[in-house]
Amino acid sequence: MKSRQAKVGAAPGTMVHVGERMADKTSLRVVTYNAAEVKTWPLRDSAEGIAESIGQGITWINVDGLHQVDVVTALGREFNLSALVLEDILNTDHRPKLEVHDDFLFIVVKMLVPEPARDSFRVEQLSLILGDTYLLSFQESERDVFDAVRQRITIGKGRIRQSGPDYLAYALLDAVVDNYFLVLESISTELEHLEEALLTAPGPSDLHRFHSLRREAILLRRIIWPVREALAGMTRDDSPLIKPETRVFFRDVHDHAVQAMDIVESLRDLASSLLELHLSRNSQRMNETIKVLTLIATIFIPLTFIAGVYGMNFEFMPELRWSWGYPLVLLFMLGVAVTMLLYFKRKHWL
Amino acid sequence: MKSRQAKVGAAPGTMVHVGERMADKTSLRVVTYNAAEVKTWPLRDSAEGIAESIGQGITWINVDGLHQVDVVTALGREFNLSALVLEDILNTDHRPKLEVHDDFLFIVVKMLVPEPARDSFRVEQLSLILGDTYLLSFQESERDVFDAVRQRITIGKGRIRQSGPDYLAYALLDAVVDNYFLVLESISTELEHLEEALLTAPGPSDLHRFHSLRREAILLRRIIWPVREALAGMTRDDSPLIKPETRVFFRDVHDHAVQAMDIVESLRDLASSLLELHLSRNSQRMNETIKVLTLIATIFIPLTFIAGVYGMNFEFMPELRWSWGYPLVLLFMLGVAVTMLLYFKRKHWL
Amino acid sequence: MKSRQAKVGAAPGTMVHVGERMADKTSLRVVTYNAAEVKTWPLRDSAEGIAESIGQGITWINVDGLHQVDVVTALGREFNLSALVLEDILNTDHRPKLEVHDDFLFIVVKMLVPEPARDSFRVEQLSLILGDTYLLSFQESERDVFDAVRQRITIGKGRIRQSGPDYLAYALLDAVVDNYFLVLESISTELEHLEEALLTAPGPSDLHRFHSLRREAILLRRIIWPVREALAGMTRDDSPLIKPETRVFFRDVHDHAVQAMDIVESLRDLASSLLELHLSRNSQRMNETIKVLTLIATIFIPLTFIAGVYGMNFEFMPELRWSWGYPLVLLFMLGVAVTMLLYFKRKHWL
Amino acid sequence: MKSRQAKVGAAPGTMVHVGERMADKTSLRVVTYNAAEVKTWPLRDSAEGIAESIGQGITWINVDGLHQVDVVTALGREFNLSALVLEDILNTDHRPKLEVHDDFLFIVVKMLVPEPARDSFRVEQLSLILGDTYLLSFQESERDVFDAVRQRITIGKGRIRQSGPDYLAYALLDAVVDNYFLVLESISTELEHLEEALLTAPGPSDLHRFHSLRREAILLRRIIWPVREALAGMTRDDSPLIKPETRVFFRDVHDHAVQAMDIVESLRDLASSLLELHLSRNSQRMNETIKVLTLIATIFIPLTFIAGVYGMNFEFMPELRWSWGYPLVLLFMLGVAVTMLLYFKRKHWL
Amino acid sequence: MKSRQAKVGAAPGTMVHVGERMADKTSLRVVTYNAAEVKTWPLRDSAEGIAESIGQGITWINVDGLHQVDVVTALGREFNLSALVLEDILNTDHRPKLEVHDDFLFIVVKMLVPEPARDSFRVEQLSLILGDTYLLSFQESERDVFDAVRQRITIGKGRIRQSGPDYLAYALLDAVVDNYFLVLESISTELEHLEEALLTAPGPSDLHRFHSLRREAILLRRIIWPVREALAGMTRDDSPLIKPETRVFFRDVHDHAVQAMDIVESLRDLASSLLELHLSRNSQRMNETIKVLTLIATIFIPLTFIAGVYGMNFEFMPELRWSWGYPLVLLFMLGVAVTMLLYFKRKHWL
Repeated sequence: MKSRQAKVGAAPGTMVHVGERMADKTSLRVVTYNAAEVKTWPLRDSAEGIAESIGQGITWINVDGLHQVDVVTALGREFNLSALVLEDILNTDHRPKLEVHDDFLFIVVKMLVPEPARDSFRVEQLSLILGDTYLLSFQESERDVFDAVRQRITIGKGRIRQSGPDYLAYALLDAVVDNYFLVLESISTELEHLEEALLTAPGPSDLHRFHSLRREAILLRRIIWPVREALAGMTRDDSPLIKPETRVFFRDVHDHAVQAMDIVESLRDLASSLLELHLSRNSQRMNETIKVLTLIATIFIPLTFIAGVYGMNFEFMPELRWSWGYPLVLLFMLGVAVTMLLYFKRKHWL
Repeated sequence: MKSRQAKVGAAPGTMVHVGERMADKTSLRVVTYNAAEVKTWPLRDSAEGIAESIGQGITWINVDGLHQVDVVTALGREFNLSALVLEDILNTDHRPKLEVHDDFLFIVVKMLVPEPARDSFRVEQLSLILGDTYLLSFQESERDVFDAVRQRITIGKGRIRQSGPDYLAYALLDAVVDNYFLVLESISTELEHLEEALLTAPGPSDLHRFHSLRREAILLRRIIWPVREALAGMTRDDSPLIKPETRVFFRDVHDHAVQAMDIVESLRDLASSLLELHLSRNSQRMNETIKVLTLIATIFIPLTFIAGVYGMNFEFMPELRWSWGYPLVLLFMLGVAVTMLLYFKRKHWL
Repeated sequence: MKSRQAKVGAAPGTMVHVGERMADKTSLRVVTYNAAEVKTWPLRDSAEGIAESIGQGITWINVDGLHQVDVVTALGREFNLSALVLEDILNTDHRPKLEVHDDFLFIVVKMLVPEPARDSFRVEQLSLILGDTYLLSFQESERDVFDAVRQRITIGKGRIRQSGPDYLAYALLDAVVDNYFLVLESISTELEHLEEALLTAPGPSDLHRFHSLRREAILLRRIIWPVREALAGMTRDDSPLIKPETRVFFRDVHDHAVQAMDIVESLRDLASSLLELHLSRNSQRMNETIKVLTLIATIFIPLTFIAGVYGMNFEFMPELRWSWGYPLVLLFMLGVAVTMLLYFKRKHWL
Repeated sequence: MKSRQAKVGAAPGTMVHVGERMADKTSLRVVTYNAAEVKTWPLRDSAEGIAESIGQGITWINVDGLHQVDVVTALGREFNLSALVLEDILNTDHRPKLEVHDDFLFIVVKMLVPEPARDSFRVEQLSLILGDTYLLSFQESERDVFDAVRQRITIGKGRIRQSGPDYLAYALLDAVVDNYFLVLESISTELEHLEEALLTAPGPSDLHRFHSLRREAILLRRIIWPVREALAGMTRDDSPLIKPETRVFFRDVHDHAVQAMDIVESLRDLASSLLELHLSRNSQRMNETIKVLTLIATIFIPLTFIAGVYGMNFEFMPELRWSWGYPLVLLFMLGVAVTMLLYFKRKHWL
Repeated sequence: MKSRQAKVGAAPGTMVHVGERMADKTSLRVVTYNAAEVKTWPLRDSAEGIAESIGQGITWINVDGLHQVDVVTALGREFNLSALVLEDILNTDHRPKLEVHDDFLFIVVKMLVPEPARDSFRVEQLSLILGDTYLLSFQESERDVFDAVRQRITIGKGRIRQSGPDYLAYALLDAVVDNYFLVLESISTELEHLEEALLTAPGPSDLHRFHSLRREAILLRRIIWPVREALAGMTRDDSPLIKPETRVFFRDVHDHAVQAMDIVESLRDLASSLLELHLSRNSQRMNETIKVLTLIATIFIPLTFIAGVYGMNFEFMPELRWSWGYPLVLLFMLGVAVTMLLYFKRKHWL
């Protein structure tokens, strides 16, 4: 939320990059293809004249890194994107959504990029502009989850080369949503490990891990819920930009988003149940500890008192002179201890 | 979620079996029947030419085990199933749903197979393809809950032999949902046992069993909710594949799913209430224990101190020489103890 | 849920009584009436020919006890009830609902029969078949809440004799819903008693009563919610079986069901609030107890230690020989105690 | 809920007063007015012939006290109210609602009458019958919140005298809803006081006050929610009894009810947050107390043991004869104490 | 809620300022502009004749301070605002809403004005009257978040000078909603700080800060939810006062309000999770403390008892005379301590 302050009261369409800088520089990867051939263009730094230079067929322009605002706006001008759309693309904090414009669809979703090193994941925004013959994708860094899609285009596997940019958009969104499951799976595994740890030998760091899992679940919920809505919009929407035969694929990816949402909810429920269980266990253990303390203290404190009495140095304490005084006191102490034990037995504390 | 990783970015319709392997091999059980006769075909390993070889009447093809992807896809080709449908059938992780296609309905539900040994149940996916004269059912292992249905077909009891594949689909779904009640019933019984255990003599393993019950309830909720939705879709849908006279039966099974959902919610509420009760009891018991400890300690610690004072070895301690010193001290101690007891009495601690 | 197992996979319309047997035998009470006269028929064991023998006017057939499946099904045949309807009538576990059939309405609700002895209530299912000139009511035992309605028919008070079976159905449902309020009222009173008990002198049995109250609230919620839905259906439905002038009465009973639901929700909220309050009180009390223990222990343990030091038997302990040793030590002890007390004062523990 | 029992199974329209008796006797206050003049009639005990005796203009009949059932029903007969409506008016337990009849609207809401003595409020039912030229209002006692409205009629301030009975109904409902804010405000203030009390010096009575605040919030929620619904109905409804120019006023009072509901929800959330905070504070304080106890006990108990050892009376204890025995033991004790303190320091307990 | 009491029963349109007085006096800032020029009028105290004196183009009249009721009503008369609208403007307690009138739209929202000194924010009401050529804005003090908008008008940047008052209204609302994010951001940062504080070294003041954060979140929820609704109304509404080309901007600001709501919900969830974590940590720490206490007490109390026994002064205690008595007792004590330690080891307490 770095640049938020700068935007308050600013004119709409004020081009400000909101978010962290994740790439060295903003660069464009262009691929044009049709059923017959694929052409991968060299990496570019500038969007000048890109709209004319691309020929027939489908064009996919992928933008990595959004901090060079001028490159992004230049590309926007080439494809007649409105200032509001460009502003939303540059605001990497944006809520996932679908906007239907006259000659393109504007889709904002979130990619989850797993970070095995930190045992966590990073959230990146992916914005798609789906036109009649082109697809523009804007992402925050070079890392993405689209390698398999690129390969499918290159080797022409499946129907991707025969279909339009709507199918390409589907392929990208499908990769994004499929990736959610990998993250959910790792959270689920982590939760199971934590469950074991919490129930057998809980340490303070376990609770910390637990809290960060819940934080992740809250974040995922906030991300997946609107993504689901946006995808639902694409299955319902009657824009001519999505062909009827592609619509069934969007329904499929929407199904997956719904299932991801289900899993997030289950994880939340499981986490709550687990925490309650942990608290119950804790209170049970504390109860036991206190019982042991009470037992020992309640038996020995009176005995120590008796010993203390006969340790007093009064001159006139007749018991001290009796030959049977010592054994009698020991017997009396034994009696007290046994009585106490019997009392606890009856209270079911032993 | 084993094969999830392989699917990220893969083309739709990439045939991958997602899930555990539960059967030795994939085999097909074929039954054809009409009002007059029933024909049970021998067990088959391959789907080659199966569509032609089946004759008039209703055909039910049941597939056990989904890991041999080629057998399943061959059967799919015979009945013109699209790649997306086959992919969903093979993904045993799929969310229950109803899909209306042009010439068939595609239904995904979950079967609960009780496992008495583990005092739990296993979840298996059941996919149904309901065509005009055929029903395909795909399940993960040979074990299922359809023996009674098979018998009804064989002996021709009820209207099953007079009706179409829609009625057969109903019969299968009804068996699936009826089975939910058996599982819910056993969970309910288990919860009652736990209630007694937790309230009389709670042990750590009780809490563990409690947690696994809640986990089961969360899972059931995730399963039954979309099953209910799918069944609601079948009562609403005006597809010609479900005959008007069968629709009332689907309404019946939908009613049962709604009731199962109600019971799951009640179980969750009961479990929450029980846990809160358990925590209250625990805190009450701890309170009592601490009270006993406090009582004993508060009475004897001051007395022990007094005894300690007169156990000091100072040469000039005049009290030690008094003839009445000892009984006076004992009396004083008694006074302190009685005062303390009266104080506790007034505080309602006794 | 006794006979559930038998029903898995069974053909729909398999007549099995699900539930407890509550009556000695299944018997029929028949009343026919019109504005002019009332005829109460003798108690019958069989439904043979009952449809023909009844004449003009309105007929109310009340069935007590459902375990004699043949009697119920015979009656069903007389009035052309479908197998699915009969199956639902016999399943006393059924969810409340309204089903609109071509020539009758089928209503399932739950009666609450207070059991003062157990300080609780019993749930019984009431199924109504509302035809154009007849009303069939099926209940599990002879006990019901309809005595006042019977009287109104007999003495012809109000409009009941002038109206059709729809008004009779209303009268029965109104009695059922009015009875909910008696149960809710007694739960409410019990909750108030518990509140007092929990807040003044909580015992373990209070918590148990509390838990069973919550269990009852959960049950009531599960019952009243769908009853409300079914009644809403009757106010909305445009079936000719409910005359326009009766519809306003159904709206009235629906209003009552909504209010009953409101009360159940309030009871749940109150119970939650009460439990939280109880836990707060408990934790506060425990805190106080522990404070007293800490106070006494923290003051006397150091003093006892000092006494212990001068109780040691070393030969060379110069203090023991001082004339002022004893009073000085006593003074020192006093000083330690006062310091401690002042410290606690500053900590606001006193 | 006194007379509930009497009503179970009773015919609809059975006139029974349900609720507490709050007025000495049932009396009628009649006001007729038009733009030109106002006529206040003497207080009446009976409704006989009231409909004819009132002339032109708008008539407002206010009934105070509902326990004299005959007076209320007589009035009802004068204005052709149906038995069901009269029954609902007499049942002061009724849920707020709007009923559209052919020639009048029937509105039930709840008045909150603040009771400063008990630091609480009383709930009274207000029923309105809005006809084309008259408004009937039924309330449980003479106390109401309508004095300002009466004054506005008398002095002819604002548009009240120029408008119809719909505007009068609005004026009354507006006064009722405005009064909710006074009650909400006092609850809000009380909650703030409690917050301070709970966080600085909580006593058992605070918790009790807290619980009764929550109970009030639950009650208010149950009251305001349906009042809001009823008012929403009046803004939506296209009955000719509410003139288009008055509808905007009903929208205004509906807005206020929505806001009152918002405040109730916020109060509930605040109360929950507060209780959680209180429990956290409590657990933190208990933790501190236990730490102090543990510290003192852990330091002095071992020391006391050492002193006890050298207080033993064995004849052969060489240390007792050493000249340096005493100081060495004291040094050793000091060492133990310091070690303990360092250990606690490292554990961050000090 | 100061003047609430005065309003109960008052005629609608009774002009009373509800709320705190935040400005010295009520003053009007008038700006008229069109594409060609901007005219800023001198500050005025009175609204007399303001409607005529303003010429062609767009007029924005901003009112600062609402306590001088006569100034506000005079302005209202100039622009023909109804009494109800003026009343709502003066009631700074009002719920955010959109009202569609015949010749203007009436919008009420809340501004959040950050107060860095108190580390908090202040809520102020902003009311907008959007006419065909004018925009009236009413705010409680001179401080606002519109400086950037004023500058855009002055320097003619962006399309603001080319557009109508609807665009100006959008610009103001956008500034208001953008400002929400600044407040949310600071709450989010504060929560993170608290998280660290609570998890490492919690103090009582942390909990207090935590509670005030939750209180702020509850307040924000109550504010943003209806603002979102009002903005949704503006995107849906087909009033001619909002031009089609401006509607897309309102959709944009609505999107932002939805996202702000999402963030509020996440903050609530995070806060809940954090508090639960804190309680878990606390209970875990208490458990550890009690364990240490129990360990020490359980080991040394029995030893002290033994020492006490041999400190008794009986004349006939044969052990005291044995040469090996002392070392044997020490050995025995060691044995007891070791046994205890082994027992705790086995219990996994060490």
